[in-house]
Amino acid sequence: MQIVHSPLHVRHSDGVELHRGELVPCYEKPERAEYIREALVDAGHAFVEPRNFAVETLHRVHDPAFVAFLSTAHARWREEGRDGSMLPSGFPARSLRRDRVPEGINGAMGYYAFDAGTPIVEGTWDAAFASAQCAMTAAALVAEGMPAAYALCRPPGHHAARGAYGGYCFLNNSALAAQELRDRGFGRVAVLDVDYHHGNGTQDIFQERGDVLTVSIHGTPETEYPYFLGFADERGSGEGEGCNLNLPLPRGTGWEAWSAALDTALEAVAAFRAEALVVPLGVDTYEGDPISAFGLREEHFPMIGARLAAAGLPTVLVQEGGYAVREIGTNVAGVLGAFERGAG
Amino acid sequence: MQIVHSPLHVRHSDGVELHRGELVPCYEKPERAEYIREALVDAGHAFVEPRNFAVETLHRVHDPAFVAFLSTAHARWREEGRDGSMLPSGFPARSLRRDRVPEGINGAMGYYAFDAGTPIVEGTWDAAFASAQCAMTAAALVAEGMPAAYALCRPPGHHAARGAYGGYCFLNNSALAAQELRDRGFGRVAVLDVDYHHGNGTQDIFQERGDVLTVSIHGTPETEYPYFLGFADERGSGEGEGCNLNLPLPRGTGWEAWSAALDTALEAVAAFRAEALVVPLGVDTYEGDPISAFGLREEHFPMIGARLAAAGLPTVLVQEGGYAVREIGTNVAGVLGAFERGAG
Repeated sequence: MQIVHSPLHVRHSDGVELHRGELVPCYEKPERAEYIREALVDAGHAFVEPRNFAVETLHRVHDPAFVAFLSTAHARWREEGRDGSMLPSGFPARSLRRDRVPEGINGAMGYYAFDAGTPIVEGTWDAAFASAQCAMTAAALVAEGMPAAYALCRPPGHHAARGAYGGYCFLNNSALAAQELRDRGFGRVAVLDVDYHHGNGTQDIFQERGDVLTVSIHGTPETEYPYFLGFADERGSGEGEGCNLNLPLPRGTGWEAWSAALDTALEAVAAFRAEALVVPLGVDTYEGDPISAFGLREEHFPMIGARLAAAGLPTVLVQEGGYAVREIGTNVAGVLGAFERGAG
Repeated sequence: MQIVHSPLHVRHSDGVELHRGELVPCYEKPERAEYIREALVDAGHAFVEPRNFAVETLHRVHDPAFVAFLSTAHARWREEGRDGSMLPSGFPARSLRRDRVPEGINGAMGYYAFDAGTPIVEGTWDAAFASAQCAMTAAALVAEGMPAAYALCRPPGHHAARGAYGGYCFLNNSALAAQELRDRGFGRVAVLDVDYHHGNGTQDIFQERGDVLTVSIHGTPETEYPYFLGFADERGSGEGEGCNLNLPLPRGTGWEAWSAALDTALEAVAAFRAEALVVPLGVDTYEGDPISAFGLREEHFPMIGARLAAAGLPTVLVQEGGYAVREIGTNVAGVLGAFERGAG
């Protein structure tokens, strides 16, 4: 499997997040990508660095003003004499306006964010842009004829919406991959998100589009992050009516129920007559994940890879979640190895 | 001046808030009320404890489900094995749904909050309910014939909306005082908020009502909390069209411009033909306030008291902000003393 990865991910480091009433080191940390990289090197996969996409390519799925905010935010924060993790504390939530961006940095960061768990540090923009380039590069490789490619993205992306960040995500790598495939000739693209958490950002971005199907299997937002999107009654709107499918599952879900949801998801992809597939690949469905609550075991990840390969579509896999345990490398390698064997 | 105060305020103590990327002890702490109480005792004011209003009286201005959440929130938090400051980290902000309350406590607290700076601790409900009772009691005293009364409320209230909390506020004491006046026969009530921060909660509560005028003089939300309400173009809606007036002012505003805004506010109160007045009294307009940026000095607070008295209306003053410096006692006493002399 062709791997696309950038060492620039380490620029997004040492952040803290508000978690259960305490500031703790981010669960989304550089070691995650290192664990995965090492496992994929050991498995013999080939690595390339991303191509240099222009910043304007991000505007295909993100508001230009949001992109401009992200690229300048930490500099504005430092101008106010601060440093380290930039975390908003006030948000345009219920009872407040959402229709104007305050001038000052404190209000602006709250405007563009939806949680207090996604720190922007000095190198965040460099890492996030490189991560997005990895995903777009993997999509370009598939459009150029590779059967599949994997973007080892960090920071992850699937929570980032058209104009809002959160959930450790800044730019929506998976959405950018889907858009790249669309722009290179695939008429209908499906996004099948297997991360433990709902892919709210991807859903938001393609909410009103009929050319991209978004499907997500995830912990129910009744109890799981992001709490405010990902329910089963969200089916898309306008031209995107019927082009979103959410499969929320309760905490504690094991392989049997999870794999049944995967069947349902793959049936939706087939029914959509997708010409290409993007898989936001979170491995935080693993039973040992420190912040998630599904019960998938190591042997299940190759089974996921084989099932995805059986869809028989040109496929871009994009790394999303999976936290800070060595097994995330094993599990990603398990998915990719089985995918290759299945597709071969 | 009759003072209404409850010692239960100390039950809301030892909280932490997310402030500029760090968790710090809340600026809104018990010493605030102690400074004020001592200054008012020294000035010879008479104190009473609040009457026992039923919890249902809160439903006049707050969603019952929101009240139920507040009264049970910390117990639910403790049921999950946690303790101390309950702070949400995910919010129904931009790109997310606002129309359903997640079942779990993490989602529910984000649903009902709009910042990560307003901790709920074990005693918060007791303190907040007692604080609301102080405001309602002061209003009852005025309705019963006293020319004025002051509620030494803590926690404060003016940021609390019909169904959302934040800005150190849980129940909207000033809105409850205004409602109590309405229910006891005053046909038209004006709320004139002189706190440094916009009274977004009070505006939200009376947004569509024509019987309560809301006016606020405050630091512009372009740079100041709460960032997402308090702009000059918000004038009320429906039956409340024209019944809200925001007078945002830039950081660094001193007495001259501030008192001109007070003139404008008092003209609006007169034009509304208000029969009674509620004053959310923040003294964080003081030049020495640690988290605000206006330049009022000690000699200006008696001038505010005299100007408010000159409106000639039955008046309930309700303590809002003013942070952790001894001068907040002096400044509150300055307002109340001059009000009494002016009204006497």
